[in-house]
Amino acid sequence: MSPASPAPRSSGIEPLVTLDAVQEARARIGARLHRTPVLSSRRLSRQAGVPLRLKMESLQKTGSFKVRGALNKVLVAGKAARSGVVTVSAGNHAQALAWAAGCVDVPCAVVMPAGASETKARASAGYGAEVVTADDVHQAFALAESLARDRGMLFTHPFDDPAVIAGHGTTGLELAEQAVDLEVLVVPVGGGGLIAGVAAAMKRLRPELRIYGVEPRGAAAMSESLRIGRPARLERVGSVADGLAPPMAGEITYRHVRALVDDVVRVSDAQITAAVRALAETTKMVVEPAGAAGVAALMFGRIPELGGGPAGVVVSGGNVDSSLLAEILDPERARGPASPR
Amino acid sequence: MSPASPAPRSSGIEPLVTLDAVQEARARIGARLHRTPVLSSRRLSRQAGVPLRLKMESLQKTGSFKVRGALNKVLVAGKAARSGVVTVSAGNHAQALAWAAGCVDVPCAVVMPAGASETKARASAGYGAEVVTADDVHQAFALAESLARDRGMLFTHPFDDPAVIAGHGTTGLELAEQAVDLEVLVVPVGGGGLIAGVAAAMKRLRPELRIYGVEPRGAAAMSESLRIGRPARLERVGSVADGLAPPMAGEITYRHVRALVDDVVRVSDAQITAAVRALAETTKMVVEPAGAAGVAALMFGRIPELGGGPAGVVVSGGNVDSSLLAEILDPERARGPASPR
Repeated sequence: MSPASPAPRSSGIEPLVTLDAVQEARARIGARLHRTPVLSSRRLSRQAGVPLRLKMESLQKTGSFKVRGALNKVLVAGKAARSGVVTVSAGNHAQALAWAAGCVDVPCAVVMPAGASETKARASAGYGAEVVTADDVHQAFALAESLARDRGMLFTHPFDDPAVIAGHGTTGLELAEQAVDLEVLVVPVGGGGLIAGVAAAMKRLRPELRIYGVEPRGAAAMSESLRIGRPARLERVGSVADGLAPPMAGEITYRHVRALVDDVVRVSDAQITAAVRALAETTKMVVEPAGAAGVAALMFGRIPELGGGPAGVVVSGGNVDSSLLAEILDPERARGPASPR
Repeated sequence: MSPASPAPRSSGIEPLVTLDAVQEARARIGARLHRTPVLSSRRLSRQAGVPLRLKMESLQKTGSFKVRGALNKVLVAGKAARSGVVTVSAGNHAQALAWAAGCVDVPCAVVMPAGASETKARASAGYGAEVVTADDVHQAFALAESLARDRGMLFTHPFDDPAVIAGHGTTGLELAEQAVDLEVLVVPVGGGGLIAGVAAAMKRLRPELRIYGVEPRGAAAMSESLRIGRPARLERVGSVADGLAPPMAGEITYRHVRALVDDVVRVSDAQITAAVRALAETTKMVVEPAGAAGVAALMFGRIPELGGGPAGVVVSGGNVDSSLLAEILDPERARGPASPR
C-alpha cells in the first residue's frame, strides 16, 4: 500500500501515518531495541475465554514501548535535535526520550507533573535527563515549551507526533509476525500514541483484524473524544494506571483512533489491579497498571464479539514503584493496620 | 567422557551422576519443557562487578527447575510408577511431580510439612495431586513412606535421587550453550539436587569453570555438611527462602558437592529479599526468595575470586505468595501500622 492511499473511514483531510512509515521506523530503530517476547498463559486465557498472546513491552529497553517512538523521533529529527530534546511526561516517555537522546548524544530535559512516579523520575535522571517538576500537566507543557524556546531544544510531544506514532506502530508489526493467527488486538490507551501506531500498521496489513483500545474509567479521554466527536480535555483524571492518565486525547491520535480503531472500552482500577496480580502470579512478570489494562479488559469481559480466536494484547510497560506494586499484590494488608504474620 | 570415568576429587567409592546421564535426561525431557531464557541486567551486573547471565528457571513450567528432575524421574521409572508417585516437598518439587505424573497419567500424592506455601499447595492440587499435610518434615517423610507402602506408589525423593539430579543438570547444559563465556556458575542450594546435577554436567564439560552454591544462613545444611565431613541434619531451620530450607543435605547430593563444587557460601534473609526487589525493579521478573539467592550472593560480594568474566546464575523459581512478595517489596509498610497514602 502506498503512503498516499486513502485510509479506511478517515473523514478528515489530514493524512494518517502510513504502513510504510511504520515499516521505515522499524528499519530505523529495530537493531537498537528488543524484539520483545510474546507469552501465553493457560490460566489467563481460560479466564478470557480466548487464547491470549501477550506482547511483553514491559521487557522492552527502558521498561516500556515508549522507547520505540522516542528513538524514531530523535533519529528522524537528526540535526533539528542537535541542541537537545525536551518533553512532558509522567514517566515512561521521559525515560524513553532520555535513553533515546543518549543514543544520539544530545541533551534531554523532561518536565514531570506533580505526582509522577518516583521510580520513573529516578530512572529518567539515571539515563542522563534533566528532570524538572511542574504543578500540573498544563503548567508542565508551558514549561517545556519555554525550555524549548530558550535553549533551542526540540519539543517532543509524548504521543501526538507522527514520528512517535510510527515508532510505536512497530510493536504491532512484531506482534503480527510472532502471532500470525490473531482475530483481535487489544491495546492500552493513554494519549493514544500506541494504539494510533499499531492501528496505522495493522489495519492496513490485516483489515479484518478488530482493534480495541482500553482506558481506565477515571481517565477516559479517548472514549469521551469519540463520544463528542473531537479530542476531549478532561477537568480531572485519576487512576492507578498513571501511564494512561493524560487529561486529553491527542489531535493526531484521535484522528487515527476514529478512523482505524473498532472501539475504546473502559476498565476500573480494581480490574486493572486484579490483572497486575494475575500477571505476577501466573506469568511471573512485573507489569505496571497501565501495562495490564488490556489484560484486565479481556479478563473481565470488556471486549465485545470475541469469536474464540486468539487475542493479541500489548502489555505496554513494567515500570511500577515497588511500594505501589506491594499494595496491589496484597490489598488486604493495605486496608487495615499491619496484621501479625 | 564415558559414564565410568573417575570424577575429579571424588573420595568415595559411590559413583556420581555422569555427564552422559544428564545428556540422556535432556533427550528424554527436553521437548516437554521450556528452554528458559537467559537475561542480563546492566544494573545488577554493575552491582556484582561482573556481567551476570541469569538463567530464568522461574519461567520454567510449574514455575521452577524442579520439573526437570521430576519429569526425568517418572520417565525413567516407567512401569515402576504405574501405581503412582508420592513425595515430600515444601512446594516446588510437589508441583513439579504433580505435573510430571500428569504427563504420564499416573496418580500423585504430596506430603507437605506445616508452613508450606499456600500458593504451592494450591498449585499442586491444581495439577491433580492429592495434598497431605504433616506436622514437620520428619513426620512428612514417614507419612510419605507409609503411603508408598500401602498404595504401591513409587517414593520419589525431592532431591536425593540420581534421576532427579540428572534431570536438574539439564539446566546447566542449556546455560552453557546460551552463555558460552562463563567463568563462574552460582547455584542456590536447598537439598542440593540442582547444584549436584549442574556440577555433574558442567565440571565434566568445562573443568575450569568455578561452581559455587548459595544457602540461606538460617538453613545452611550443605555448608555445615562440608564442615563436618558428612551430610548434616539441622535441628532447626528458618529462612524467607522456603525453597532452600530442608533441614538436611542429601547423602547423594552431598557427595556431588564435595567432589565437584568449589564452595558453598551463605547469604542473609535481608540479602535475599534485596535481590528479590532488585530483580523485580530491574528485570521486571517475579522471583521467589530461593530463586534470588544466587543473585544475592553476587550483589553482596559473597562469591570469592571473581575475575571479571561473566557469572552464570540459576534463578531457580518464581513461586511466591503475593502477600509475601508484597512484604518483600515494601518492607517499610510491613513494620508499622499501614500508613495513609
